[in-house]
Amino acid sequence: MPSPLPLALSDTIVALSTPSGAGAIAVIRLSGPDAIPIADAVFAGRRLRDQATHTLHFGTIRDGDQILDEVVVSLFRGPNSYTREDVVEISCHGSRYIVQQLLALLVRRGARLAEAGEFTKRAFLHGAFDLTQAEAVADLIASDSALSHRVAMQQMRGGFAQELRNLRARLVQFAALLELELDFGEEDVEFADRTGLVKLLQEVQTLVQRLLRSFELGNVIKNGVTTVIAGKPNAGKSTLLNALLNEDRAIVSAIAGTTRDMIEDEVTIDDIRFRFVDTAGLRDTTDVVESIGVERTKQRVQQAAFVLYLFDLTSTSPAEVQAEIEALEVPRHVPVLAIGNKLDVASDDEIAAFQRLPNTVLIAASRGDGLDELREILLQRVRGEGLDQIGSSTIVTNLRHARSLETTQAALHAVLAGLSHGTGTELLAADLRHALAALGEITGEISSDDLLTSIFTQFCIGK
Amino acid sequence: MPSPLPLALSDTIVALSTPSGAGAIAVIRLSGPDAIPIADAVFAGRRLRDQATHTLHFGTIRDGDQILDEVVVSLFRGPNSYTREDVVEISCHGSRYIVQQLLALLVRRGARLAEAGEFTKRAFLHGAFDLTQAEAVADLIASDSALSHRVAMQQMRGGFAQELRNLRARLVQFAALLELELDFGEEDVEFADRTGLVKLLQEVQTLVQRLLRSFELGNVIKNGVTTVIAGKPNAGKSTLLNALLNEDRAIVSAIAGTTRDMIEDEVTIDDIRFRFVDTAGLRDTTDVVESIGVERTKQRVQQAAFVLYLFDLTSTSPAEVQAEIEALEVPRHVPVLAIGNKLDVASDDEIAAFQRLPNTVLIAASRGDGLDELREILLQRVRGEGLDQIGSSTIVTNLRHARSLETTQAALHAVLAGLSHGTGTELLAADLRHALAALGEITGEISSDDLLTSIFTQFCIGK
Repeated sequence: MPSPLPLALSDTIVALSTPSGAGAIAVIRLSGPDAIPIADAVFAGRRLRDQATHTLHFGTIRDGDQILDEVVVSLFRGPNSYTREDVVEISCHGSRYIVQQLLALLVRRGARLAEAGEFTKRAFLHGAFDLTQAEAVADLIASDSALSHRVAMQQMRGGFAQELRNLRARLVQFAALLELELDFGEEDVEFADRTGLVKLLQEVQTLVQRLLRSFELGNVIKNGVTTVIAGKPNAGKSTLLNALLNEDRAIVSAIAGTTRDMIEDEVTIDDIRFRFVDTAGLRDTTDVVESIGVERTKQRVQQAAFVLYLFDLTSTSPAEVQAEIEALEVPRHVPVLAIGNKLDVASDDEIAAFQRLPNTVLIAASRGDGLDELREILLQRVRGEGLDQIGSSTIVTNLRHARSLETTQAALHAVLAGLSHGTGTELLAADLRHALAALGEITGEISSDDLLTSIFTQFCIGK
Repeated sequence: MPSPLPLALSDTIVALSTPSGAGAIAVIRLSGPDAIPIADAVFAGRRLRDQATHTLHFGTIRDGDQILDEVVVSLFRGPNSYTREDVVEISCHGSRYIVQQLLALLVRRGARLAEAGEFTKRAFLHGAFDLTQAEAVADLIASDSALSHRVAMQQMRGGFAQELRNLRARLVQFAALLELELDFGEEDVEFADRTGLVKLLQEVQTLVQRLLRSFELGNVIKNGVTTVIAGKPNAGKSTLLNALLNEDRAIVSAIAGTTRDMIEDEVTIDDIRFRFVDTAGLRDTTDVVESIGVERTKQRVQQAAFVLYLFDLTSTSPAEVQAEIEALEVPRHVPVLAIGNKLDVASDDEIAAFQRLPNTVLIAASRGDGLDELREILLQRVRGEGLDQIGSSTIVTNLRHARSLETTQAALHAVLAGLSHGTGTELLAADLRHALAALGEITGEISSDDLLTSIFTQFCIGK
């Protein structure tokens, strides 16, 4: 059993919970034992400590005799709050200045600035939900398509954790039987039916493998598909990017080498998010800024999930395209698509030279010709990975979960190998404990300070 | 008396009230007669129509049988709300996707997307506050320094309108007496004591002039000081900008002509916000992108409140600096400061040539030498305009108010001129009515649909 975590929850935390920037209102959230007294110290209106939970109060925020703002305060008394602690939310005018001053004032009155994800961490520590649900909160906030939203919501409502807990519960039964055998070690008994154990382990392993396979898709749903557009200057990269984005984010110009900095943007095609990275041209250059760009292009290609190599149909031979793609040093598992641009002004011979090559599409970026075909090819790559799985079963989107599932898989494999080689009960039990620990880490049934810190620092401040 | 405005407030409006972008939570606001039924149609939790005002309710948002999010709903029953109407605020997870879907869902259930400032406009139309207070809400949201905050808060709390209403009330008395004279026109009576009227008009005019003078400062407080940095390529403009900003916003490079696009950033020095505009170099050029930049530089100079002309001490003569500044075609009222850069590598002769010239400072941008002096000169320009006024008296920050005050001033001048030339009562009364109308427009005692539209479209959506 995991040891209880040290609950250092005696202080009261504060943070801006709405995005920073211009808006009509901003919400500042306080949570902890002194949330209500601290709010009372700055709020001129009804005395909050005398008010019922789940009530709203209009008044002013005062710093001495100066009025900082007119606000509405929301009062939640623990455990009927997000964190299960007393929570006060101050809805003020959405001015950067007011937000800064109000945060500073609340800190002077005894609150501490919250760390990233600290409200959700407190909710987890108080048992409001398990770790996968806490992590789903961050995913839900980051969700930007129907797919990523559905997967995050499913996980936040507990579906994902439930499947894992069921899995783990079945393993715990066998582990208990194995431990029992160890207690009777000298008597050479077998409480755990080995044939049944092998059958269950294989069943569990199939499930773990399916969850792991779902991660490739889950990762795409969550993080999008990083698609690098490379090519020589003037091949039309910026024009292609703009056509795909339908807006003028990149500076399009007829001067070679204009795109000096990486420009990144996202476009959602059929619910799949593609992160397009436009890169500097690949020509050899003595231009300082330019050559930094070329190095960066190569780095980006290493991290890409997809590389589009764009070339000018009217000034490039198939052999040149081949050589230039090789120069990009694309990792073997990353697909490359060659895109011949300027179809609208190319001669019949120029078109014929490329028309039958594999992994090649011909387009006219400036007119939009061939873009639908290009979008379809991009989607196929993702769809091939099992987009139709969604809705019918659980999808793993979290790298941490995938790592724990891999550990589980390795431990399960060791147990199965041990069983087939007639390994002793002690080693079997150890490997099974290993698998149980890895699964327990996913839901937080087993956790450590380090694990929690690494999870919650990925949250935004104020959640 | 102003005619009552047509209150077309029968529909229910909805908008995102927090900034768009990544954040822990987002707040969507509904206001209008159907705010509560519309919220009930999508909210699974307690029935809101049965709940008391100023209460908070946890539940889920459902679109059919799909759960969109877990939310907290704030319920305000009119007239105890910001708009004086029924208001429901839905606090959801801060995901772009969820916000879009929730807005779309509420529109499908009968709400209409709010126009900019429409919540505040409704509050004004329902008599929650006067027009200057409504306008101060927008200023408060935009406030980003102690000064702009204090001025906006003072105006929102009604101080500004009060001064104007007092002013207007005194004029109304005289206007009434003049109208009375007109009623008795054939009897040649003088109810309004002309000597007293002249005295009051002069007093009022002094006040209007003071308010108008305060606008130059008020405009700086509200909008910042637009400061254009111009100069030849390689004079060190980006380096200077970065040194002033203390961050790496502009791309600094040793290649002439690197800064192709305008880069704008703001820095607050002693509570005054300066908007620095870095511009492309001014050399004659055949580079297409570059020459667009040069044209833009000249445009920006026309709109500047301050022009900094930066030059390289080691490669420029005083006569050249003079000629280049003239080429910028700076409007006469805009001050120009010549800044000689590279003080650290300049020879004694080079330094001596510039040391005694007026409106010239010598700096070493890369080392930060002379920047404090530069900041001080920038501040002096603003301080000279009466920064010490603040706190002791009202400051006009709004262009609309300034325009109405100018109209008032012209009308008052006409009345005074008429009095000294012995003009008839009819003309005097007309000019005085003119002045009263201009003043009434400021506080909204007199308003029109067009006026309200032009004011509230400057608000952000959701306020």
